[in-house]
Amino acid sequence: MRDAVSKRTQSAIDDLCALVRHESLLGNEASAQGWISDKFAAMGLDVERVKIDISALRDQPGFSPPVIDDYDGRENVVGLHRPKNPTGKSLILNGHMDVVPTGPAEQWRHGPFTPHVEDDWIYGRGAGDMKAGIIAYCQALQALHDIGLEPAAPVALQSVIEEECTGNGALACLHAGYKADCAIIPEPFNQTLMTAQLGVMWFQIHVSGSPAHVLDTSAGSNAIESAFGFFETLKEVEEIWNHPTHRHAAFGAHVHPVNFNLGKIEGGEWASTVPPVCTADIRVGFYPGMELEKVRETIEAVKQSALDNHPACKGAKIEITYRGFQAEGCEMDINHPMMSMIGDIHQEVTGKEIKNLASTATTDARFFQIYGNIPATCYGPKAERIHGIDERVSIASMMEVTEVLALFIADWCGVQKRAT
Amino acid sequence: MRDAVSKRTQSAIDDLCALVRHESLLGNEASAQGWISDKFAAMGLDVERVKIDISALRDQPGFSPPVIDDYDGRENVVGLHRPKNPTGKSLILNGHMDVVPTGPAEQWRHGPFTPHVEDDWIYGRGAGDMKAGIIAYCQALQALHDIGLEPAAPVALQSVIEEECTGNGALACLHAGYKADCAIIPEPFNQTLMTAQLGVMWFQIHVSGSPAHVLDTSAGSNAIESAFGFFETLKEVEEIWNHPTHRHAAFGAHVHPVNFNLGKIEGGEWASTVPPVCTADIRVGFYPGMELEKVRETIEAVKQSALDNHPACKGAKIEITYRGFQAEGCEMDINHPMMSMIGDIHQEVTGKEIKNLASTATTDARFFQIYGNIPATCYGPKAERIHGIDERVSIASMMEVTEVLALFIADWCGVQKRAT
Repeated sequence: MRDAVSKRTQSAIDDLCALVRHESLLGNEASAQGWISDKFAAMGLDVERVKIDISALRDQPGFSPPVIDDYDGRENVVGLHRPKNPTGKSLILNGHMDVVPTGPAEQWRHGPFTPHVEDDWIYGRGAGDMKAGIIAYCQALQALHDIGLEPAAPVALQSVIEEECTGNGALACLHAGYKADCAIIPEPFNQTLMTAQLGVMWFQIHVSGSPAHVLDTSAGSNAIESAFGFFETLKEVEEIWNHPTHRHAAFGAHVHPVNFNLGKIEGGEWASTVPPVCTADIRVGFYPGMELEKVRETIEAVKQSALDNHPACKGAKIEITYRGFQAEGCEMDINHPMMSMIGDIHQEVTGKEIKNLASTATTDARFFQIYGNIPATCYGPKAERIHGIDERVSIASMMEVTEVLALFIADWCGVQKRAT
Repeated sequence: MRDAVSKRTQSAIDDLCALVRHESLLGNEASAQGWISDKFAAMGLDVERVKIDISALRDQPGFSPPVIDDYDGRENVVGLHRPKNPTGKSLILNGHMDVVPTGPAEQWRHGPFTPHVEDDWIYGRGAGDMKAGIIAYCQALQALHDIGLEPAAPVALQSVIEEECTGNGALACLHAGYKADCAIIPEPFNQTLMTAQLGVMWFQIHVSGSPAHVLDTSAGSNAIESAFGFFETLKEVEEIWNHPTHRHAAFGAHVHPVNFNLGKIEGGEWASTVPPVCTADIRVGFYPGMELEKVRETIEAVKQSALDNHPACKGAKIEITYRGFQAEGCEMDINHPMMSMIGDIHQEVTGKEIKNLASTATTDARFFQIYGNIPATCYGPKAERIHGIDERVSIASMMEVTEVLALFIADWCGVQKRAT
């Protein structure tokens, strides 16, 4: 298998570079999804498209209010291997095609969507998170094909949208009925085995101050400063949740598992006017087992505390809108055979014992694990600076993941002679 | 004179409402300037237009780097009364046509550019600051005309742009050679006599953090939080400058003369990405006698202190651009005959002693006073919530100012029978 995978290295690099060129930012996923659709078809898979039908998903557990409302032309793509006489255990390999914004493009050495290969690294927005994972699961199946084999059980390759903001892409696939005996997502977690993931909640605060001429700033309340007053108050909760006594056991070893992020802000319009309005987008992390409703109650309590006690919030109005991730945390079933099989194959391929990861971010694994009754985890390549400037993924690691996935398919699904 | 002015009340209201309808925001002053040009012409004045030629102004004292670069079609308008045989002292009546942004239009009871008359108030953006002042100086001259008189000395009515961000409009008029024995600006300062004004400086900070996935916020530095760290450090200077021991004598009685304002902010692009960049517009006030260069040195020292000491600024880069107001503070000549004449007429018209005002904002008076050797002050109507929501001006006050200006013209310039 190593030979078969090794021979595919250049193909994997070429594929990843081609895919990075598709600027699959939120709302702009169609051309990348077209590329993967063609790829799946060329691999001999049955290709299906899965629409994200908000009216159908809205009442499903795990649904998150969209960040952009229009899902027209924005679909998941699924490539299905359906053996005529299935014998083994079925498998879903899932990856997300959406990438996060690039930051200032001029800060990238070669531009965010101009893939660049240097030594062992491929640079580009989404190269690591997680187009390399998508390429890896494709190449794994192709490596089997190369040696005349194919899985003996159904395998679904899923390329979904909106992993980075709602998870509604993965939810739509689940709702469409795709099931399997387990699911693996090759997220760029440095070939660790994910055993738990935090919950993540996004919300937007809309702060109204009281605008006035700056000749007397005390006559108005500054909405920008009020927004910060809220965030300062919120950070006290972050500190408490990170305190060892408050931690979920799975995150005991982390330096700082729970991260609150003031990710975006916009307020005011004139240097000499006390700004009347300010909007800020905030992300909070929280532990598995904490209910979404309780997290929201905490946030509302923070708002009241800020209004009551923070000097910068005096006289302000704060409205909170929950949109984007309303994502529960979850723990994986570390005793499931799928988990030990990944660990064993990883050790066989790399010569090293696999390390477990309790992720401080969310992934689409939650849909399979919590809502789909499908044991799931993440196992994917080494990448650096995901969400940052000059994001990059290790080619060697991508190929090791390809090999691990190919062997996993062979062991989990069984193999048979490839039908022609 | 009171009768003549009183009879013009409805005309003044109509004129002000007409003028408020012109949305003379920065860059959009042309239609309002067209209106006043027609008005000046209808009053029998010679109308001149004064271009803002940045290449000519750039090296003039008092110049401020523009906020928007294009001055095409954005001109000052001057209406000139030129008596054939001038005898008295000449006068400039100056007002600015530009208005500040409106804030959220939906928060206005009747929309910012939908003038609304209720009891003694006219509502609208710019109604007070300072279209009522412009209408007042027009109506004052018209009241003289109504009783068959005209000034015996040259009078220039100036309607300038960019008082609210650079002062380059007033500077262009000065540079074009308009001179007089004194200048009055009917800024909406509640019929006080302005004896001093603060300096004002605008600058923009560009903060670069180090973007990263929020799964470990400590891996990046948050540019939004760094921007706030800078502003927090800057506010320490505001506190020092407001301390009684640091105050300029003219501002000794103020509660809080020096105001620093974080007026606008924009940063980040994604809730789950540590924001890589943030831009903020800041306004600082400072006392007459403080040199611009010293103020900038203070700001640069604050930047270094924030980078060295503020935890939120660790690892950030901060660049500062000085654009918009680089406006020195100044003191007026309170012993000048023009000042006492305004005070005397105010008392005659209102029955009350005039109050002095040391303004905590800047006005175009600085150009006349510091750079033009033209004694200048502000005396204008009562207005409320300038730069705020539901800005409004008192009609009674506007008409009192009209009367004071008419009497001032008569006393200062002398009058003669109106030429027909």
